[in-house]
Amino acid sequence: MIFFFKPASIAVVGASERRGGSQTIRNLLYGYEGDIYPVNPRYKEIHGLPCYPSIDDIPPPVDLAILVVPASVVPSVLEACARKGVYRVMIQSGGYAEVGRAGKDIQDRCMTIARQAGIRLWGPNCMGLVDIPGRNFFTFMSPRIYEDGIIDGRVSLIVQSGMLSAGFLVDLMSQRNIGVSKICSIGNKADIDECDVLPYLLNDPETDVVALYLESVPRGSLLLEILRNAQKPVVVLKGGKSRLGAQSALSHTASLAGDARLLSDILESAGVILANDFHQMVDLARALAIKPGIPTDCQVAIVSFSGAAGILSCDLLEKYGLDVALFSTDTITSLGNLYPDWMPVGNPVDLFPAMELHWRELPVTQAVSILLKDPNVDVLLVYFVAGLGGEELDLADLKNKADQEGKIIVFWLLGRRKAQREFRLLAQKCGILVYDEISRAIECLSAAVRFQGYKASWTDEDPRDFSGFDSALPITDRSLTQNGVLDEYESKKILKNRDIPVVEERLVSTGEALKEAAREMGFPLVVKGLLSDEMHKTDLGLVKLGIGSQGDLEMAFREIRKKLGGRGKVLIQRQIDTDFELIAGFLRDAQLGPCVMFGMGGVFSEIDPDVRFASAPLSYQEAIKLISRIRNRKILEGFRGMMPLKTDQMAHFLVNLSRLGVENSDIEQIDINPVSITGGRPVAVDAGIVFKCEKPEKTGGINL
Amino acid sequence: MIFFFKPASIAVVGASERRGGSQTIRNLLYGYEGDIYPVNPRYKEIHGLPCYPSIDDIPPPVDLAILVVPASVVPSVLEACARKGVYRVMIQSGGYAEVGRAGKDIQDRCMTIARQAGIRLWGPNCMGLVDIPGRNFFTFMSPRIYEDGIIDGRVSLIVQSGMLSAGFLVDLMSQRNIGVSKICSIGNKADIDECDVLPYLLNDPETDVVALYLESVPRGSLLLEILRNAQKPVVVLKGGKSRLGAQSALSHTASLAGDARLLSDILESAGVILANDFHQMVDLARALAIKPGIPTDCQVAIVSFSGAAGILSCDLLEKYGLDVALFSTDTITSLGNLYPDWMPVGNPVDLFPAMELHWRELPVTQAVSILLKDPNVDVLLVYFVAGLGGEELDLADLKNKADQEGKIIVFWLLGRRKAQREFRLLAQKCGILVYDEISRAIECLSAAVRFQGYKASWTDEDPRDFSGFDSALPITDRSLTQNGVLDEYESKKILKNRDIPVVEERLVSTGEALKEAAREMGFPLVVKGLLSDEMHKTDLGLVKLGIGSQGDLEMAFREIRKKLGGRGKVLIQRQIDTDFELIAGFLRDAQLGPCVMFGMGGVFSEIDPDVRFASAPLSYQEAIKLISRIRNRKILEGFRGMMPLKTDQMAHFLVNLSRLGVENSDIEQIDINPVSITGGRPVAVDAGIVFKCEKPEKTGGINL
Repeated sequence: MIFFFKPASIAVVGASERRGGSQTIRNLLYGYEGDIYPVNPRYKEIHGLPCYPSIDDIPPPVDLAILVVPASVVPSVLEACARKGVYRVMIQSGGYAEVGRAGKDIQDRCMTIARQAGIRLWGPNCMGLVDIPGRNFFTFMSPRIYEDGIIDGRVSLIVQSGMLSAGFLVDLMSQRNIGVSKICSIGNKADIDECDVLPYLLNDPETDVVALYLESVPRGSLLLEILRNAQKPVVVLKGGKSRLGAQSALSHTASLAGDARLLSDILESAGVILANDFHQMVDLARALAIKPGIPTDCQVAIVSFSGAAGILSCDLLEKYGLDVALFSTDTITSLGNLYPDWMPVGNPVDLFPAMELHWRELPVTQAVSILLKDPNVDVLLVYFVAGLGGEELDLADLKNKADQEGKIIVFWLLGRRKAQREFRLLAQKCGILVYDEISRAIECLSAAVRFQGYKASWTDEDPRDFSGFDSALPITDRSLTQNGVLDEYESKKILKNRDIPVVEERLVSTGEALKEAAREMGFPLVVKGLLSDEMHKTDLGLVKLGIGSQGDLEMAFREIRKKLGGRGKVLIQRQIDTDFELIAGFLRDAQLGPCVMFGMGGVFSEIDPDVRFASAPLSYQEAIKLISRIRNRKILEGFRGMMPLKTDQMAHFLVNLSRLGVENSDIEQIDINPVSITGGRPVAVDAGIVFKCEKPEKTGGINL
Repeated sequence: MIFFFKPASIAVVGASERRGGSQTIRNLLYGYEGDIYPVNPRYKEIHGLPCYPSIDDIPPPVDLAILVVPASVVPSVLEACARKGVYRVMIQSGGYAEVGRAGKDIQDRCMTIARQAGIRLWGPNCMGLVDIPGRNFFTFMSPRIYEDGIIDGRVSLIVQSGMLSAGFLVDLMSQRNIGVSKICSIGNKADIDECDVLPYLLNDPETDVVALYLESVPRGSLLLEILRNAQKPVVVLKGGKSRLGAQSALSHTASLAGDARLLSDILESAGVILANDFHQMVDLARALAIKPGIPTDCQVAIVSFSGAAGILSCDLLEKYGLDVALFSTDTITSLGNLYPDWMPVGNPVDLFPAMELHWRELPVTQAVSILLKDPNVDVLLVYFVAGLGGEELDLADLKNKADQEGKIIVFWLLGRRKAQREFRLLAQKCGILVYDEISRAIECLSAAVRFQGYKASWTDEDPRDFSGFDSALPITDRSLTQNGVLDEYESKKILKNRDIPVVEERLVSTGEALKEAAREMGFPLVVKGLLSDEMHKTDLGLVKLGIGSQGDLEMAFREIRKKLGGRGKVLIQRQIDTDFELIAGFLRDAQLGPCVMFGMGGVFSEIDPDVRFASAPLSYQEAIKLISRIRNRKILEGFRGMMPLKTDQMAHFLVNLSRLGVENSDIEQIDINPVSITGGRPVAVDAGIVFKCEKPEKTGGINL
């Protein structure tokens, strides 16, 4: 990647005295310190630089070629690059895969040439690369982007988009006074994608946080691997909500994975902070870039000169699960000295009366200084109005004091245009967070706390260590349907063999066997008819619950047999008392690889699903985290006299499920629904395993 | 209110040459056209105006007195106002009820004087009143507020706060280039509150939408009455999440009403749009002020020159339940002419290739003009970058074209600072919406659609028309507990009498009666022990479900009797098959008056509650709306082969429940939990009515 980010020389093919070809040269002249070679047969010179008719004509070596020529001529330019030995090419023009068949053909031809020549391609259909601290603008975007001044920041962006990058960057810097470090517009990702750029930025000393806008995740497993091992926070905004993987929804697990929930969940389980809009993505990233990190039990002091702002801050802190700090007695005494006698001290600190009394004595500065010393305070959320006269803040000094105490100051800023601009620029320079809305400030704080929580729960435990794990179970009859679905009984046999607790049950085919089953298991019982074509037995009337006597059992047996009409099997199952029902599953996503699902079962799993996913295999700790991520986690903690879920048992259940799936590449999906919880213990009551459709051999000792 | 908003003369008590007292005068001099009388014994003249030693010394009549003197002297000034006959007084200083006991005493004294003299008080502890179109600044806030220019708007604000108003107003106008009409800071609301100001603004021809920030709702019932009859949209941001009413949570209904859910729900049921932050409140209000109103099945065209912005817009439209328009063939043909051949036409309209080709021919203007003529399009969401060169938009012309077609244009704007400012000012002038974030733009559109939906479902049906409603049931033994709770059996008798379907059941006290009950009702049965002290029977083991035989019945009867130990009663109930369980309730809130609750029942009503409230009595249409507002409404529509809820029956159930509560002022709360749904029909299975604690007469014919 270094030759894209820090090339010693750049050729601009399609350089010109006007439009994009001119802007690219002017952008390079603005800050790039290496050699620039314009290429265009129609010019001798462009913006004072000698211009070459073709890339072959440039005598010295070229590290990077930027192509701003129409798509149709790009393949021949790539051939010239191959001849010249230019191994890094950035194609910024559009008209490729994004516009349909014809464009896709050109893109494919480009990739063939590049692969043969060993060229790495960036783009096409992108705005290129901007490195703000390095003043490198490898892009055809308008030079006006830096006319309002350049602002350095510590957040780098990877954007799967063309035009957005330019407008967004100029908006951040000129309108919002927010700086970034690098902005990488990777367009169609024909070759270079986020998995190439992200590792570079995670190692970049000028980058503290990376934010990504992605539409596709072509190398999902690799991306997850990079994210799991990232030492810096990563924010992701995913555009396009279409289904990710290619698996068909034969299982409930697969259908619950729809609607982009899977990718979001898997990213979250890898410690990613999810965004839902462009500016919010940057706002989140800025909060994550703040040093020092915010403790997970973060206590917030609110400094305001509006009661309303204080009250709303408390409301929003509560909504996002953050604490309003309880001040030390020292703090209360010191703050009291700022106030008129009639004014009680508390959190929120309402400075309005103090400002009336002592505005020349800098009450905000004094209050902030007092609160920074309070051991019960981690974060100060300060409401300030710029440009209405009165106190002015020395932000650099406040930031120094905060750093000394290891604390964070965040501003909610209102005020007049020019004064706000000055305030924000200074704050950006000092590394102080400023937000436009209280809710955004607190949302961002909460994301930073969440990230710290993720870091704190990080363990070295390697879920991929399969040593000592027992394995092969010979399956003589898989009873697969045409879709590759294994029936309930056989599926549970496999689960049981992998130490996943299953309900007691047996197949019966004679009246004698029925009696014996009843004798051994005792009532109440369940009778199920298993048909190899149907996963939803209930709908066909093939399930009889709550059978309490031998007579009822025999009647149910006869009835089910009649419905089966000579096909299928009859399964007798112990009916267990259930406190509540959960669901667990496994699937192999085409992009993201193996994943495990956990959530609330029963009817609510279909109406208002409460399930979460994580990448498989799971470590024990990851399983514990997955369990804790569902919305209704309160139910698991014991409710209305029910035993709480034994999370260790549930975690082992999920670990074993994840390994079963990962180790057997012919397993596509697994449903365990419901997982009944009785006295806190999880038991698989119904299950189905979906195998790859190329039906495997009916006999053999594969690793089940 | 007219003397507050449009006084012919104003006295400023505490006028001065410096600080607040000076600013108030300068603010009046800026735009107020009536007579100004500074009052302060220490000056002869202030800012060129003759100054009076006291209010008594002003010869002509005074419509309004603005008081910027310390709280301690305010009572004597009020006495002077009474003598002089000044009947409108605005107290802007702080130090009253907001600071505790001593301040509360001063405030009470002020109110006593005002009430005796017939003076209406505005404040105290407020920033007063700003009327932007009228250029009336009745406030001590810094004159810098209008130094950056005044922007007229159509949204008026009522803010229960002091300081916030000033910073917020200057931020809106100077930083965000957004105008408002009136901003009314009503502070402690000792006398004048939102119920006084809101009706004035709802009638104000310069106001199209009213936005309120409220911390308390002292006259909740009146506010609801005003809101229900409001012809203009109203947005409310509620600060402070403490419990509203004073009722004790004897019922599940009352405990579910906690956490501010009640007020939010009731406001929503009255057509209010709820906000959660200050700027968002104004953003929502601006969208609601846009003319013409947006149709409820609003179809959105997206115009972008970034694929990413288009994709994210689609994602967010889907999230907020808005439709991406399908273009007419005419539109597709016309748009195709703007594009290079290789570019397919669709929604979102990605104009980037067109801008490359035809930027001199104004592709955005052309595309917008084409889309405005498409009958399948109601709203255009246009992404634009200001100040990067290229096309400039004639906003006034676009707005005219949009008005001719009865359509709405909304911009998501990025770009350079100065160019954005110009764009926003012009847009504000034309009445075009501009937002910073796609998500905010779409959230606001969705609120406008929701409001139209509310207006569309409005009926003239008067829930207060009780004619033809049958009534009095003499209750000889109410079996009330000390808390006023009526037992299940008696409660259901009352419900049944009011045409609310209840489960078949009877009290039994002898073995003979038991047998007869079984014979008449048939198995399975439920046996319950009723104790007058305990609403949660299940926890005491006083409920036996699923009794299938005479033997089991007798055993259960004996067991329950034993547990009752001679106290209480035994109830035999038909056990009904339940598809799903709902909950319904009634409560009388101290501020909001009578309210009805409806939602999902069973265990989930306690873990992850899904209940909504509405003001009682309900009309039939209001009941239908209440039913449709729960999150899990999909369950009601028929799920997994279950019959859908018969909404007409459920609506009558809720209407009857609401009337029962409203008509009997000694009913505090009613719980019906669960309401079992079988074959779509609602049946009250368990219920409890809570009466006022002053135990009413045990006999008599009150209206139950």
